Parts: sequence; C-alpha cells; structure tokens
Amino acid sequence: SVPPGMLPLCHRPPAWGRATQQPPSLPLAPRRAFSNNKIMVELDESSGVATMKFKSPPVNSLSLDFLTEFSISLEKLENNRACRGVIITSAVPRIFSSGLDITEMCGKSTEHYAEFWRAVQEMWLRLYGSNMVTVAAVNGSSPAGGCLMALSCDYRIMVENPKFSIGLNEAQLGIVAPFWFKDTFVNVVGNRVAERSLQLGSLHPAPEALKFGLVDELVPEEKLQEKTGAVMAQWLALPDHARQLTKSMMRKAVLDRLVAHREEDIQNFISFVSKESIQKSLRMYMEMLKKKKG
Amino acid sequence: SVPPGMLPLCHRPPAWGRATQQPPSLPLAPRRAFSNNKIMVELDESSGVATMKFKSPPVNSLSLDFLTEFSISLEKLENNRACRGVIITSAVPRIFSSGLDITEMCGKSTEHYAEFWRAVQEMWLRLYGSNMVTVAAVNGSSPAGGCLMALSCDYRIMVENPKFSIGLNEAQLGIVAPFWFKDTFVNVVGNRVAERSLQLGSLHPAPEALKFGLVDELVPEEKLQEKTGAVMAQWLALPDHARQLTKSMMRKAVLDRLVAHREEDIQNFISFVSKESIQKSLRMYMEMLKKKKG
Amino acid sequence: SVPPGMLPLCHRPPAWGRATQQPPSLPLAPRRAFSNNKIMVELDESSGVATMKFKSPPVNSLSLDFLTEFSISLEKLENNRACRGVIITSAVPRIFSSGLDITEMCGKSTEHYAEFWRAVQEMWLRLYGSNMVTVAAVNGSSPAGGCLMALSCDYRIMVENPKFSIGLNEAQLGIVAPFWFKDTFVNVVGNRVAERSLQLGSLHPAPEALKFGLVDELVPEEKLQEKTGAVMAQWLALPDHARQLTKSMMRKAVLDRLVAHREEDIQNFISFVSKESIQKSLRMYMEMLKKKKG
Repeated sequence: SVPPGMLPLCHRPPAWGRATQQPPSLPLAPRRAFSNNKIMVELDESSGVATMKFKSPPVNSLSLDFLTEFSISLEKLENNRACRGVIITSAVPRIFSSGLDITEMCGKSTEHYAEFWRAVQEMWLRLYGSNMVTVAAVNGSSPAGGCLMALSCDYRIMVENPKFSIGLNEAQLGIVAPFWFKDTFVNVVGNRVAERSLQLGSLHPAPEALKFGLVDELVPEEKLQEKTGAVMAQWLALPDHARQLTKSMMRKAVLDRLVAHREEDIQNFISFVSKESIQKSLRMYMEMLKKKKG
Repeated sequence: SVPPGMLPLCHRPPAWGRATQQPPSLPLAPRRAFSNNKIMVELDESSGVATMKFKSPPVNSLSLDFLTEFSISLEKLENNRACRGVIITSAVPRIFSSGLDITEMCGKSTEHYAEFWRAVQEMWLRLYGSNMVTVAAVNGSSPAGGCLMALSCDYRIMVENPKFSIGLNEAQLGIVAPFWFKDTFVNVVGNRVAERSLQLGSLHPAPEALKFGLVDELVPEEKLQEKTGAVMAQWLALPDHARQLTKSMMRKAVLDRLVAHREEDIQNFISFVSKESIQKSLRMYMEMLKKKKG
Repeated sequence: SVPPGMLPLCHRPPAWGRATQQPPSLPLAPRRAFSNNKIMVELDESSGVATMKFKSPPVNSLSLDFLTEFSISLEKLENNRACRGVIITSAVPRIFSSGLDITEMCGKSTEHYAEFWRAVQEMWLRLYGSNMVTVAAVNGSSPAGGCLMALSCDYRIMVENPKFSIGLNEAQLGIVAPFWFKDTFVNVVGNRVAERSLQLGSLHPAPEALKFGLVDELVPEEKLQEKTGAVMAQWLALPDHARQLTKSMMRKAVLDRLVAHREEDIQNFISFVSKESIQKSLRMYMEMLKKKKG
C-alpha cells in the first residue's frame, strides 16, 4: 500500500506492457494531495482527443505538484475508453515548459529529492509509454525537461517563431541529462546530433530544431491548433491495437532500461544534487533568474 | 532429416557466418515439392550477376510456393561460384511485390501457418545474410513483405514514378510487423523515421521514399536496367572476401536475433493469426481486394 | 609492471571513467623508447588549447612510433590541468593522415603485430575517451586510420577542397575495418551510411563527406585555423564536468566493448595479418605505392 503523501508507483506492468487490454482503473484513494490546477484537461468525446494545457505561470516549470498532476491526469485519460489521443500544449504565452523546477532541487531533504525524482521518472514512463496517440503542440520555448516531454510524444509540431527554442540544455547549467533523457533524444535525432547537442547543451531555435529532426514540422501560431488536429486525426485513423503494439515494439527497450534501474537512478540523482558544488550552482542560477525577472 | 513436404531449415551456420568459405552444396533430394515457375532466374556468367525476376501475377504475392522457390533459387546462386551478385526485380507491370500472401494466413491449419512463417523467415535470413551483392530494382509498388525484400538488399533503386509506393504498412491492416522487419527497417532509415512510418503504416511514394532513405536513388523506368547494372558493377569491384566480412559485421546482430528467437517468433505468428478477430479482418481485407479487382 | 619496450597499457580506469577527477600522473619511467619528433605539440596556456600537428612526411602514416608518441602526448595533455582542449591537424600539405602504416603489418613477428595493434587500440581508447574537447582540423585527405582519428574527435572541420577525401576504405585494400572502427563510424553517420560506405570502402570527397555527416563543416583552407579556434571556444564555454560526463554517457558503451574484447581483438588482428594471402595483398599494395611515388 502506498503511504499518504507519495505518488503511487507504477508497480503494475506499465502502459506499454498492457497494449492488449484496457488498463485496470486504480483506486484513487491513497494519493498524494496536490493542487489540481496546473493543467487544464479537456476531452472531446466525439473525436476521442484530450488536450492537456499547461497553465502554471510564469514558465510551466515541472514542480512536484505539476508532475503529480500530469501523471494522474494522463493515467485517468489512459484508463478512459473514450479517449484515444492526447495533445499537450501550453496556456502560458511564449513558453511550453521551462523544465524541472529548480526550487525542488535546492536545500531540500533527501526524501524530498527522492520523491521529486520519482515523479519525474513517472511522468516520462507514462508519457513515453502511453498507449494513446500523443502529440506535442510546442507553442513556446521548451528547454530541458520541457524538451523531454515533447520528445516523448509520437509527433511534435512547433510554432515557427525563431525566438522559440528547444533542447536538452542541462550541460549549460553544469548538470547532466540522465541516461533516459539521452536515450529518448537519440531515438528521435540519432546518435551524432544527440552527442553534439547534449555536450553543448544546445537550445535550438525552431528552424534548426526542424532541420535536426527535434520537431516534425513548424507552423504559424494561428495554424497550430488546426494542424495539430489534422495530425491527430491521421494517427487515429489507424487501428489502435496494431498502432499500440508497434509503438511498444519501438520504445520498450528504452522504457525497460529505466524500469530496471529506477532506484539506482534515484540514488544517483540524490547524491548528485546533494553535492555542495551543485547546490551552489543551482542557487546562483536561481539568483540570476530572479534578477532577470526583477 | 527433413520430412518430405517441408523446406529444409537453415541448420548449418547461415550464410553470414560462412563468409570465409564457399558454402557446401546441400543435397536437394528431400525438398518440398513446389511449382518452379514464379521466379525467372538468369545468370550472366560473364559478369557473375544473376537476375531474379518475379513473375507471379497479378501482384507477386509472397505465397508459400513463391517463398520456397525464392529461397531455393537464392541458395543455388549462393552456392554457385560463378555468381557474385543478384538483382531482384519484377516482371509484372507496376508491382514489385504486394507482400505476404493473405490466403496463406486465412482459414488454414496451425501446421500450415508454421510452415508459411518459417518460409518467410527463411527468405529473409537468406537474403539479408547473403554473401552476394544484392540490389533491388524496384519497378513498381512494394508494400509490407515486398518492402522487406527490398530493404534486405545492399542497395535499392526505384523507378521515379510517384504512383509507385513502398513501406511497411502492416499497421494499416491491423497487424504488426515482426521485430526483424522492424530491425531491418531501422537499420536502413534510422529509429525516428521507422517509428513514425511503422505506427502510421505509411506507404511512401517514390520521391518520399528517397527523401527518407528507404531507397537509395530514383531513375526513369527506361534507365532502370542500365543503372542497376552500373551499381552492381561498382559493388563487384570490391574484393568479395572483405566486402562479405564487412556486410556480416553490419548485419550479424540483427540476423542472430531472429535465429535465437525463431521458434518463438513462429509461435507468436500462429497465436496472432489464429485469433478470430484477426481472421475476421483478413477475410474482410480479402473481400475488399476481390471487389476492387472485379 | 610494464616491460621495457612496450607501451604501458591502460590498466587504470580509462579516461572516460575518470571524468570526476583529474587523472593521476603516471610515472613516465618504464616507457617504450620512441622517436619524439613526429607530432608537434603546442599548448596555449591562456586559452587552455593544445594543438597536435602531425609532421611525419610523406603521409603521416600511423607507425608504431607515431601512435606511441600520439598516445603519450595526449596523456600528458590529459593530465595537464592547464589544458582543456586539443586540436589535431597536419603539418604535411594535402594529407591529414594516410592511416595505419602498412610496413608495420608486413613480414614482421607475431610479437610486433601484437605491439602494433595494441598501440592502435591505445590511440583510439585515449582519443575517443578523452575528457578534453577534441577537434579535428582535417586539412588534407584522411583515409582509413586517419579517418578514424577524425571520427574520434568531438567535432570535425574539413578544408573544402574536393580533392581531399575521407573514409574508412579498408575494403578497397581487401581488409576489414575492426568492429570498433565500425562502431565509431556508425555513431557519427548512422547505420545505413556506414553499411554502404564500409562495404564499398568509399573515400568521400569533402562535399560528400559533409552531406553524409562524416564531417561537421567545410571551410576554405585559409579560414581553417580561425574557424577551429571559434569552434573550440564554443565547446570550452561549457562547464568541463558536465560536458565530460555527457561525453562519457554517449561513448561509454562503445569504449567498453573494445576494453572487454581487447586481447581477442589483438589475436584476431594477428591471425588475419599473418595469412599468406593478406601478406601478399599488402606487399602488392606497397609495391604499387612505391611505383606511384617513383
């Protein structure tokens, strides 16, 4: 049983192992309390398409609350037979998501770091392994964890504004993207582009992101919704069962790798983030962000 | 010993393990009887290049007979010191091969499904692992199993007619390409293109197939033979031994994976194809094809 | 302890496993004697960038002496806290490096072949696994082992002269690139380009090398130094620690594979190169080179 105050873990075979059946509904009782207002979820029952709109200003950062809400919302949709596809997008202008919330990684307890990291893993396991068609409508910049969310979908459409950029820029902050961020990235852009981009911590402006295959297409902002709907309809035209098994075949190895090393990965995160040098750079980075804002 | 009525299996180290020596000639006696008229084989002794022309109208579908004839013909060429390269192409207008013959998968016995699937595996193991230079001259559409045959060659030249398309479109029929179809595809086009194309069951018109790397070049139909000969000559200019070992080094992991899981893969196919829901979709698909024809 | 006359092996955890600390300085005493004049090393202490200029005319071939000098020079820089990046380039006009020195592989003892091959491995393990930023300024042709050196860097800039070519052309000589040459190549250009290029033993003229991703950019010869410096500065702008861990994450699997099979790989090389047929082709090839020169 799950102790109160913790996100229930994925002890069941995760989504990509359950392609042949509707996953059973989990009891929602012993869940962690969380503020249920960072993501707007709308399900269009006629098309079977849900939209998850991130509305956690100023930058949709992936806090523990945000991640918990995301995973629970996604699981509900996964278990809802009326829902076959999910669009993720932002309700905040000019930003898709700024990635992991640094305040969760600064001056907190070991237990907190563990809970936070488990929630990051959970988000990725559920999204990358989703049985639903997942489309990212990237309507703003999307660094680090925000980029990971987009990379974990089946298809990425980005607004063709060269001021919007996307990438796994962890190295710029003096930190290292975990292996499963890297695996997800390599699966999308190939080994060479990933190696160079990860080492440089590159944030690619939209046109460059298209060139490198980080996103699948660019559209003017006013066409984003229409285009996203059209892409979703194209993917939903396929029989669910065959599409799900195919997706699972493509992604299973990478998902299994985190599942097999999940606790180890949490310990790595804790010992990394607990280092005084890392705490210092994160504090400096937060100071810089505050000054920028102020 | 091989019971009569069955294709002798590849119990010897398969072709990609025998690069250092001419493979021994197998006794041809206990072979399965088959109609020896679905593939025209011509060997030009002066160049050492054989052409295998599929002539099984209306659509060169990969029936048990076709596959058996293909594997035996390829094995004979493999064992013929005078033959160093093979071109596969179609004698049927507008179609290279329509892929696996659905009638072999519909309303048949478990034994039949096993025999059929083993013949599909055998075709791929021999073609993907061939020591000879293999070039596909794709002079028509090439869905599913037809695409697999082209992908298994060393080089693919396609007629630049945008009405001709190629792809692993299994998902469109509600079925799933086996893992070794997928592995072969990923080795040619990379992970991302494969993931998207397999999930959508895409059939790519020739120009798009070129763009995605599914084929290596496009030529006008009247130039196909000349161009194929020129490409073959370029590949044959290399010393056989070094080229064969290099090819084996590139393909061995993927070939070994099927060899290690061959019986399991057959059982998977049987239990999949025996499902009433799958039988129903296949029957509906065949009805549709008949109406289209009629 | 290392017997005199042998390059000390990398028994310590190699460079890519030591990203978190400055590697300890090794005693230099029991090293193999070698002619210390084939590579000019200059370290600019202000920028932290060293340049290794190959000056072993006529073609910078990778002899045992050259490889030993290279590995020792690189190790010294690796251990020098003042050095953060290395540029490798050629002081010989029109050639970067012609690759492995064939005279080391012809008519020598088994012990010599073992020592030579170990030195080739050592060069690659140190360069591919270097903690420093490594940039290849490819100012001439770069076949076989020369191409491997360029591929092992973090970034490749080539002079845009179409007469300069680069590639793993071993198959042209009737020999086979070892698996770790292949792994390095696949990591840069992907599986399909590698398969075709390795089987054909292709030497790609600079513009084609750019198209296939073998090099990252082309510049006019007079701009090479300036451009190389700018690229190096861009990479050095990242925090060393995060960049090093990221590089290690990308390259570790391939490095580990050789480390795990190092002795086996040496034995393979010895038994291959000891074959009379191979000795004959190498002798013929050397005769041809001599006539060409003469």
